[in-house]
Parts: sequence; C-alpha cells; structure tokens
Amino acid sequence: MNLTDLSRRPAGWLKEESPFRDVVVSSRIRLARNLAGRSFLSRCSERQVREIAEILRRVLLGGVLKDGAFYVDIASTDPLDRQLLVERHLISRQHAESDGPRGVAVAADETVAVMVNEEDHLRMQVLTGDLELEACYSEICRLDEMLERHLTFAFSSRFGYLTACPTNAGTALRVSVMLHLPALKITGEIEKVLRSARDMHLAVRGLYGEGTEAIGDMFQISNQTTLGKSEEQIIGEFRDQIVPGIIEYERRARQALMENRRTAVEDRVCRAFAVLRSARLMSSEETMYLLSQLRLGLNLKIVEGVSVRMLNELSLLTQPAHLQKFYGREMAPSQRGKARANLIREKLGGPQKRPSRRRKL
Amino acid sequence: MNLTDLSRRPAGWLKEESPFRDVVVSSRIRLARNLAGRSFLSRCSERQVREIAEILRRVLLGGVLKDGAFYVDIASTDPLDRQLLVERHLISRQHAESDGPRGVAVAADETVAVMVNEEDHLRMQVLTGDLELEACYSEICRLDEMLERHLTFAFSSRFGYLTACPTNAGTALRVSVMLHLPALKITGEIEKVLRSARDMHLAVRGLYGEGTEAIGDMFQISNQTTLGKSEEQIIGEFRDQIVPGIIEYERRARQALMENRRTAVEDRVCRAFAVLRSARLMSSEETMYLLSQLRLGLNLKIVEGVSVRMLNELSLLTQPAHLQKFYGREMAPSQRGKARANLIREKLGGPQKRPSRRRKL
Repeated sequence: MNLTDLSRRPAGWLKEESPFRDVVVSSRIRLARNLAGRSFLSRCSERQVREIAEILRRVLLGGVLKDGAFYVDIASTDPLDRQLLVERHLISRQHAESDGPRGVAVAADETVAVMVNEEDHLRMQVLTGDLELEACYSEICRLDEMLERHLTFAFSSRFGYLTACPTNAGTALRVSVMLHLPALKITGEIEKVLRSARDMHLAVRGLYGEGTEAIGDMFQISNQTTLGKSEEQIIGEFRDQIVPGIIEYERRARQALMENRRTAVEDRVCRAFAVLRSARLMSSEETMYLLSQLRLGLNLKIVEGVSVRMLNELSLLTQPAHLQKFYGREMAPSQRGKARANLIREKLGGPQKRPSRRRKL
Repeated sequence: MNLTDLSRRPAGWLKEESPFRDVVVSSRIRLARNLAGRSFLSRCSERQVREIAEILRRVLLGGVLKDGAFYVDIASTDPLDRQLLVERHLISRQHAESDGPRGVAVAADETVAVMVNEEDHLRMQVLTGDLELEACYSEICRLDEMLERHLTFAFSSRFGYLTACPTNAGTALRVSVMLHLPALKITGEIEKVLRSARDMHLAVRGLYGEGTEAIGDMFQISNQTTLGKSEEQIIGEFRDQIVPGIIEYERRARQALMENRRTAVEDRVCRAFAVLRSARLMSSEETMYLLSQLRLGLNLKIVEGVSVRMLNELSLLTQPAHLQKFYGREMAPSQRGKARANLIREKLGGPQKRPSRRRKL
C-alpha cells in the first residue's frame, strides 16, 4: 500500500448513517499483548526489539489479517508519512515519534490496525464509525485468537494479561468512543459531564488521544480500569450506560439550544459555513472549530448542501500531513494555511474564481 | 419633512465617484456664530434661549435655505428621531442630549444643516461626499451672508467672531475630513500618522465626532486652530497638504499590502463579505468593522458585486435608530442584532431562505 493513495481517501470505517450519527463519530477497542518469554520493550536490547518486530511482522502478514493488509516499518518511514498515520488514527503520536524497530499492520479498510513495539509488543485496535462495540469486540477477539495460534502471550492467572504499564494489565482492554459534543460545550454543561465521567474512572481525551486537546468539540471517552472487571462488563457499561447517557445529555442540550437560542445557533452555523466557503487562509485549529459548528448545523437541519461524508473527509484532508500529501509537496505552515483554505473552498463549493489581479490604487 | 422618510434614503451628499473615493468619505465645513447684543447660551434664561430659537428658526426658514428645507424642534422630538439625526451627522450628540429650546434646520439634500442653540446660537455646516472644500466654503459663505442680511453676529475687530468657547473664536471655522484608513490600521502605521496630525494641531476623532472611537477605520481629521489664520489659509492647508498627505500614505500602505500580504488581505475581505452575507446576528460595531474590510476589498478590486453606494447605505441603515425606523418599531439591542443581520443579508444578496423549521434531534 502506497501511503499517498491512503491519504486521498476517507478511512474505511467512517459511517454516514447510524442511529447515533448525530453524536458518535467512532468507537475503538484496543487490546495490549506481550510475547511470553521475552522482556518488556524497556528491558530489551535493540537486537531483541528487532527480533520481536520481525516475528510479529511475519505473523501479522502471514494470514492473520485479511488480503490487502499492509505493514509499515515506522523507523524507515519519513516524518510526513508517520504523521499521516497519526492523523488517520492508525498509530499513536508516541509510536510515530519514538525510536527503534517498530511498525504497524493495517487492514485494507483500516478497521484493524496492530502496532508492533509501541509501549507493548502488540497493540491491536478495531475501529468503527458507529457504536458497534460488540462487533468490534468480536473482531478483536477473532484477531487475538488468530495470533494465539502462532504466538504465546504473557499471561498470569492472578493478574491476567501482563503489560509494560501495570495500569493496562488484566484485560488489557481499552474501549474508546469519540463523541461530538458541541451543544454541551456551548451551554457549558460539558464540564459537569466530564467531571462525572472522571468520577466514574473514565478518561476524557482529545481527538488524538492522550495529552491532546478536545479540538472541534470532539471528546474521546475511555475506560481506565482494566483489572477486576471482565471484558464483557467493561463493554456492557459503555454500551448500556456511559455512552447512551452522554448522548442523551448532548441531545437535550441541542434541543434546549434550538428552543431557547435558535437564532444564536443559526448564526454560529451560518457564519461557520460562510467562512469555510470563503476564507483564503485557514489554520488546522480553526478548520476543526468551524467544521464542528457545521456538523452541528447539519444535524440540526440548519444547513443543507453538505454531507457528513464531506465533513469527515475534510476533517482528515485538512490535517497537516494529509494536506501535504494531497498537494504532493512539503509546505511551511503559512503555505498550508492557503492550501487548506483552497481545498475547503473547492470541496464545499465556495467561490472558485481567483480574484482578479487587476488593481487600481 | 417626515423623519421616517429621511431614514429610508441615503444622505444626499454621499458621492459614488470622485478622484479620492478610495479614501475620502466626506468633508465638512462648519462655522459658529452668535447673535450680537445677546448673551452666550450658558448665561441666558430659558425665555431668552426660547427667543433666540424663535428668531433663528424664522430667519432660517424665511428664504435663507432653499425650498424643501425643514426645521426640527429637538426638544419636542422623541429620542429615536434625535438619534437618527445624529447618525446622519445632522446634529451633534451633545445637541441631541442637552436640554432647552433648540433645533436644526436642514436642506432637502442634507448638504446644509444649521444647529440652533447648540453650544453657540448658530452652528452651520456644509457637507460633501468628496474633498470639495472650496465648494463647501463658497456654500457656507453664501449662507453666512444670507443670514447677515437679517441678523448681526457678535464680532470683535481684535478676536474675530466671538464664540461660547474661546477655542472656536476668530474664524470660528472648522474643517473636517472623514477618511477611511484601513491599510494604515492593518500595518500599524496609523499611529505614526495620527501622531503627526496631532503635532500639526489637528484633532483626530471617530465617526461621530468628539469623544467617539474610530470604528470601521474611519478617522475624522479637523483643524483645532481657528485664530491667527485666515479661512483661506486653513482650507488651503487641508486641501493642499494635510489631506493629500494622508491619502498618499494610505494608498502606499494598500499597495504594500497587496504586494507583500495579498493573500492575507484577500482573506480578510472575503471573510468579511461572507459573514455579512450569512450572519443571523450582528452588532453595530461588527457591522462597521466588516463593512470597512469590504470597502477596502472593493477599492482593491478583490470583490465584485457590491457598490460604494450600497456600503454607504448599509453604514447608515444599520445604525440603531435607522434600523428601528426602517422596521417601524422600537427594538431592544438583541432584537436589533437579528434585524440588522437580516437587513444586511437582504441588501447584499446573501441566502434569504429562512432555515427550515423541521428538526430531528
């Protein structure tokens, strides 16, 4: 797989229709595994790290992942392509920026990605553009079992799966749901919701995981407890209580906004759409902010003529690495601002004609 | 003249074409006069103030002003209509807000306005949408002479015309030119220009005269010295040195912006136009800011499809009193924000369709 081809298409897991499309952007289940009989990475020599990478690469591409899957050797990949993988949520920032032999195996439709030698020997994830947590879990169990036919994982009957960081031990399972919560942000109720989430031992993060800001009103909610509960319990709580609860809050906040502050909401949305279709310079942060307003407007039927598919595509294509891949050249931030604005105008059908070069001062 | 009719048309003195249209919005010449043998207003009893108002009203409407002129008795005019006259630059804020018998006589095309019992017994002004200072001066001299056929003004051979405030004595002449200086504002050079202006004993004020902010990048430059120079000298300096100097600075700043920061300027202009055509709520301040960007864009040929006439009309119609007169009802600021945005969208041909009321949460 050529990463340039990847950069020009939306991720295969993005969904246009789902019962929760108005709030849920994506769900992810992740399992951490380490090979039995081998040290955790921080204790390995470079040769040992390389051996682990080689073993896992061979197994992953030897029929575990479906046809069309590809493996990226991160160490030999240039920084722009690494950043591209981060923007597509296929690897973590840490994986992009660290050192040593490491990689990622990716299914053709990007629903499955397995990081090799990130913090653990293996970090596998299944992604979906919906709240289909059981489907994700079935898929990741299938993957886990396939791998176990070839590999033995470090497991303790007392602690469960062993991981480099003890906070992941046990199930080594992380469930994460990315939610778009613009109305809770506008009304200020988001703080209350996030506080409750933290009280329930949930982690709340931004668009790109740990340590990132919640730009574009995107909040990633994940479990922090991996020990003492079964996989089914963790997933059940997410599916039946946590996520439906937050969805309900957000929907009520939207309804209240439309009833009490309709014109102000219309104003935000219409301004955002107009600026996206007209600006000549646009930062990545402003893009995410404006796309968030537009997404809200689309869900509230305030605007027409733009699809969720287009919003998802723009959210991705306007990220720095995607933008540079799209235009086929490296660009300084100021050049990106111009290219980004042009791309958005083109995609959203804003005025295309270059302003006249004539001038009379 | 019904003030409601007045509120629906642009001022007669606004010009669409002139050699300085890109920078000069309007010019004004003002003369202060007081009746000989009568006290300055601060020393008058209410009866005396009323007598002065009566005498001047009779003279002004007795053939001194052309057919179609009208007189507004400010004391018996409601606050909204007073504010309307301020927004049209026909009376000062002080005149609108003070007490006692007072008025204003206005020529049908609004090029001439004579305030009665403002700070002085008479304050006459001639306005033009150009830099035609000589034409203004001829017109105001004609008016002054017409008045002197019926009235005797307080005059000292040593000090010239006597005025309530000594800073106006002598010629009692004030020349003011309203300049649109957005490029100097963007580049920050405006501070240097304003400092030089102050060094030359010029006053720099905002859109509505003394004590007002320079909103919408509009700067009013006036002489402060009225004594020790002849009328012709004061006007000559404005026409030949001061105003051409500032125009030249502004034009150079615009040229430099287009050469060095073209995309950033296009971005400002295109965003401003888009927001004006799309917003659902808009304050008066934001309107003036955005119209300023649009005016710059029009002069730099960055945007098309909007005329200077329309910008002038919008600058006036979106002011609080004009807006309320336009819609025929009093409105709270929040209601005005919505009405203003609707009016601007209508005038600039933005999307008119009301957003659908359907919604599915």
